[in-house]
Amino acid sequence: MATYASMDKNALKEELETLSGSYENYKAQGLSLNMARGKPGAEQLNISNDILLAITKDTNFKTADCPDCRNYGGLEGIEEARRLFGEMLGVDKKNVFVGGNSSLNMMFDTIACMMELGNSGEKPWNQQGHIKFLCPVPGYDRHFGVTEYFGIEMVTVPMTPTGPDMDIVEQLVSSDASIKGIWCTPKYSNPQGITYSDETVRRFAALEPAAKDFRIMWDNAYAIHDISDTPDTLLNIFDELQKNGKEDMVFEFCSTSKITFPGAGVAAIAASENNLNTLKKRYTYQTIGYDKMNMLRHFIFFKDFDGVLAHMQKHKAVLQPRFNMVTDTLERELSGLGIAEWTKPNGGYFVSVDVMEGCAKRVVELCKEAGVVLTGAGATFPYGKDPKDSNIRVAPTYPPIGELQIAMSIFCVCVKMAALEKLLK
Amino acid sequence: MATYASMDKNALKEELETLSGSYENYKAQGLSLNMARGKPGAEQLNISNDILLAITKDTNFKTADCPDCRNYGGLEGIEEARRLFGEMLGVDKKNVFVGGNSSLNMMFDTIACMMELGNSGEKPWNQQGHIKFLCPVPGYDRHFGVTEYFGIEMVTVPMTPTGPDMDIVEQLVSSDASIKGIWCTPKYSNPQGITYSDETVRRFAALEPAAKDFRIMWDNAYAIHDISDTPDTLLNIFDELQKNGKEDMVFEFCSTSKITFPGAGVAAIAASENNLNTLKKRYTYQTIGYDKMNMLRHFIFFKDFDGVLAHMQKHKAVLQPRFNMVTDTLERELSGLGIAEWTKPNGGYFVSVDVMEGCAKRVVELCKEAGVVLTGAGATFPYGKDPKDSNIRVAPTYPPIGELQIAMSIFCVCVKMAALEKLLK
Repeated sequence: MATYASMDKNALKEELETLSGSYENYKAQGLSLNMARGKPGAEQLNISNDILLAITKDTNFKTADCPDCRNYGGLEGIEEARRLFGEMLGVDKKNVFVGGNSSLNMMFDTIACMMELGNSGEKPWNQQGHIKFLCPVPGYDRHFGVTEYFGIEMVTVPMTPTGPDMDIVEQLVSSDASIKGIWCTPKYSNPQGITYSDETVRRFAALEPAAKDFRIMWDNAYAIHDISDTPDTLLNIFDELQKNGKEDMVFEFCSTSKITFPGAGVAAIAASENNLNTLKKRYTYQTIGYDKMNMLRHFIFFKDFDGVLAHMQKHKAVLQPRFNMVTDTLERELSGLGIAEWTKPNGGYFVSVDVMEGCAKRVVELCKEAGVVLTGAGATFPYGKDPKDSNIRVAPTYPPIGELQIAMSIFCVCVKMAALEKLLK
Repeated sequence: MATYASMDKNALKEELETLSGSYENYKAQGLSLNMARGKPGAEQLNISNDILLAITKDTNFKTADCPDCRNYGGLEGIEEARRLFGEMLGVDKKNVFVGGNSSLNMMFDTIACMMELGNSGEKPWNQQGHIKFLCPVPGYDRHFGVTEYFGIEMVTVPMTPTGPDMDIVEQLVSSDASIKGIWCTPKYSNPQGITYSDETVRRFAALEPAAKDFRIMWDNAYAIHDISDTPDTLLNIFDELQKNGKEDMVFEFCSTSKITFPGAGVAAIAASENNLNTLKKRYTYQTIGYDKMNMLRHFIFFKDFDGVLAHMQKHKAVLQPRFNMVTDTLERELSGLGIAEWTKPNGGYFVSVDVMEGCAKRVVELCKEAGVVLTGAGATFPYGKDPKDSNIRVAPTYPPIGELQIAMSIFCVCVKMAALEKLLK
């Protein structure tokens, strides 16, 4: 098929008319489909239902370092849970702090702690005047939300197929002491599904920040969330940092939100002893401890890290056909038209689509009118502003698979219509 | 028995010698007893074990306003849980926000929110320079910890048998705009077990603060935690506030920590629409939502508020004999000596003992050497400083009842020894 750019006006008009016909047909169906957020679907949730039966009448509530998980205490979480997360992230259990049901909450609290207490002997961030954070784009809207909430200026850094553009990261971080951190989703990044290359991880671990209190927020949300038979691997940043004596430079986050239940999982932080000590200066006032029964429930259900990995194969079995359907549909409907590019990730929760510049908002609007809710255009950029108005995050996990197929067909129609509208202007 | 003050030196010395003999006998037993924290004991925890079986293979995860409790979403908590807490606190469910497992965490986050965002159109607290909080004393050490963490100066107000001294509260609050709030445990206060009188609640609800952004932190931790057959009743502060059009003046907190499991309960805030809107400006960045499965588990287990009340009767059956043993022992061992006073609460988790001035630290030290851990002397005052060195918080709930009896006997010996040591100086 010819690219749209190479077609004459009449051909474009004809194409738009045909598409508008299909579009009106879809609209008439009064659909209500949602590809907005990275929510597991019902089929995935069902995989973990037995965790709810993990605790029985015979359960012993005593664990390695907790006399009774039902009671108060154990600020850092039970040892069994710290060990399990440690295995997932490749760090010792002494470097793991297990929290509540939300890694986002732990990231928020970590930034709050830096704002209020600071680190590395520097003043608290909220006493340092104007400070900044680097935000690889496109990225995760909730990361940007946290920095925006705390009034931290966000500076964008472009993503490349191997991670953030490290030339830019190194240049900015080493020259500007007001840059206090960077958000990273190093494996199967949100939304592109990019895994940082070994070189990228090594360059992160070798950063020479102008700010002593610079911190990498390493959100390893999709550490074991493969959807392909050729999964990506991510270098262990703690190992690399240790080689350079820089293990204080990172906070790593993860959770079981997309392993067991999004609303009722367990989240954790991995960090150096210094960093954990700083965080605990705040946590010790904030709470007596997080829900150890839910930690215990998870531990009993999984038994060990092999149990977690086996469980992830079940998610993969559900997700692989969905992601294939999404990328196959994009390929079939849009390839060769010169109006869109997309990723084909080996894991994670999203497919990132770059539509023709200036068309993302229009695509989202057209979809919405036809009953398909997408993540808002711009959401993958700080302040919701995509300078090219081009990136759209597609989340294939939540709708039933039949609906996903219809939603993707509508999406492709809308991507084409928006491009045609623009070319015909 | 004669008061110690009326005895001559020789009689005092003789008494001290006798007591020292008993004390050494206790010491020789190498005991390890703990009356430090208000932790429910194993017998109480067992009462709630069936909540762990509340969710079964047949459980429907869909609730009134939540399509699937396992998934993301529902920032304010499921409607069923909001209604249940609303009944407990006497407010509409629309005024309830249900959180994670810790009301302390919700109080911490509320203060953080006021620091960062402020309220009532005033500047955030952290932009107002030096600010203060009123702290009725003796009070709850973790309340004081939160204010101390945020650098808020604490001003003490004496407790009376009807609540904080309201003459002082009114005078300070109406004259000093740097006073931004007050900590209250209005029912079965920690540590004295005092319930605020109707007049006290009405005076709180009629406060005319100099600071528009003044807030009452109403920690209703023991709302339904009776231990006597003549329980106290607390006036509903929201009703009183509404009469005065001042419903923005309070944040009320509660949890099921001492109803089901301390480490795995559910906490909630009740607040006016304005206040909830302010809190949600922060929560919406902090988390996608709290553990709805644990909310659902609680709802299934209790069914309704009558179920909660019936459940509390089981706690009462465990606690009543323990509190009786504590106050009976105090009565038997210390009454008439003129060296100690104590409360006899109708509910809550503590008995507050005022020993002879200047003796609290020594009592705690003597107890510790004999293997009985008490809450640190001074802990019931801001900055850990009891000006009279007199108040000790006794927590009768945690140790097995046999151990409690021994611990109380040792405690009374130590109270007497410390008084004698002082009188003999």
